[in-house]
Amino acid sequence: MNTRLEQQMRFIFELEKLKVVYRQNGTHGGERRENSAEHSWHVSMMALVLREYCKEKIDMEKTLTMLLIHDIVEIYAGDVFLYDDNAREKIKPAEREAAHKICGLLPEDQKDYFLGLWEEFEKAETKEAQYALVLDNLQPLLNHYAVNNQNIAAKKLSKAQIVAKKTFIKDFSDELWRFALRIIDESVKMGLYKNE
Amino acid sequence: MNTRLEQQMRFIFELEKLKVVYRQNGTHGGERRENSAEHSWHVSMMALVLREYCKEKIDMEKTLTMLLIHDIVEIYAGDVFLYDDNAREKIKPAEREAAHKICGLLPEDQKDYFLGLWEEFEKAETKEAQYALVLDNLQPLLNHYAVNNQNIAAKKLSKAQIVAKKTFIKDFSDELWRFALRIIDESVKMGLYKNE
Repeated sequence: MNTRLEQQMRFIFELEKLKVVYRQNGTHGGERRENSAEHSWHVSMMALVLREYCKEKIDMEKTLTMLLIHDIVEIYAGDVFLYDDNAREKIKPAEREAAHKICGLLPEDQKDYFLGLWEEFEKAETKEAQYALVLDNLQPLLNHYAVNNQNIAAKKLSKAQIVAKKTFIKDFSDELWRFALRIIDESVKMGLYKNE
Repeated sequence: MNTRLEQQMRFIFELEKLKVVYRQNGTHGGERRENSAEHSWHVSMMALVLREYCKEKIDMEKTLTMLLIHDIVEIYAGDVFLYDDNAREKIKPAEREAAHKICGLLPEDQKDYFLGLWEEFEKAETKEAQYALVLDNLQPLLNHYAVNNQNIAAKKLSKAQIVAKKTFIKDFSDELWRFALRIIDESVKMGLYKNE
């Protein structure tokens, strides 16, 4: 598999593996956890629907590309729970290595393009990366509430822990943050998080 | 839930349901079938990687938006197997109704925007819609091969049936079609389709 198209197809075949990387999010009916491929689809849909909450005009193609690829490193590095700070710090070198490995399947120009966008998302400095990061942090809150995620209830997270992790959303959009707080409070009532 | 943001969030909550609409495609390990949310992610990734096979310059934001939303009607109408021509014809009114129902959760301007793009994908007349349709038809072939999809093997499709459905890919790109034919032949060898 050495032609340009064959390299591209090897990458596309490899992406199948993201569909079996499972996260702490749930799905309707509770039969299985959410995987990182469907999560990536959901945050991309959110980017389309919520774009008006960006204070500046954003490049939507770039935002969508970042959101579509932001988790592909998990194919090799796995998903690490947001609230496990130690594990998240320790996984960073493995994630960088995974980014080079998965993007390295592509022709050189595309490898550089996707790696660059993955780095941009990780750094969260540009307006597109910041919007993407806000959505990536908002989606699990919406998911836990929408599917009544018993898996997260078992983690016994406190409201304070969640607010501490997610409060940066406020700097991006007051309106999104106010909505997030309402959903967090509803989720406390449902027993998904501790009221602490 | 009546403010603009609440309408948008109702739509985003409803999208959770696409993650439990299962298709004939498989996943690695064979434990479960692919759902339409992760399929939509995969075709969107393909759009990014394979854009150079479009003969004309395309609007990538529009293409990605079409691919991200193309299956949301299945939340109410379900997924219909590509090779079941009768069922596919019969489902069309239900799909149109579902498109109005799901997009109708959104504020009017966004409803019109997404409905318009869903219709554009269905008509397959613009270059973006044609590219999206090619990818939507290519992805299952790649999936069956990549995950050794035993679910499709049980359908006992013949190579001739598959080629008849997919041969329009050739008009879009000779190179993509030649690759598809190779994958179909490999899949026949793997026992996924009948050699007829």
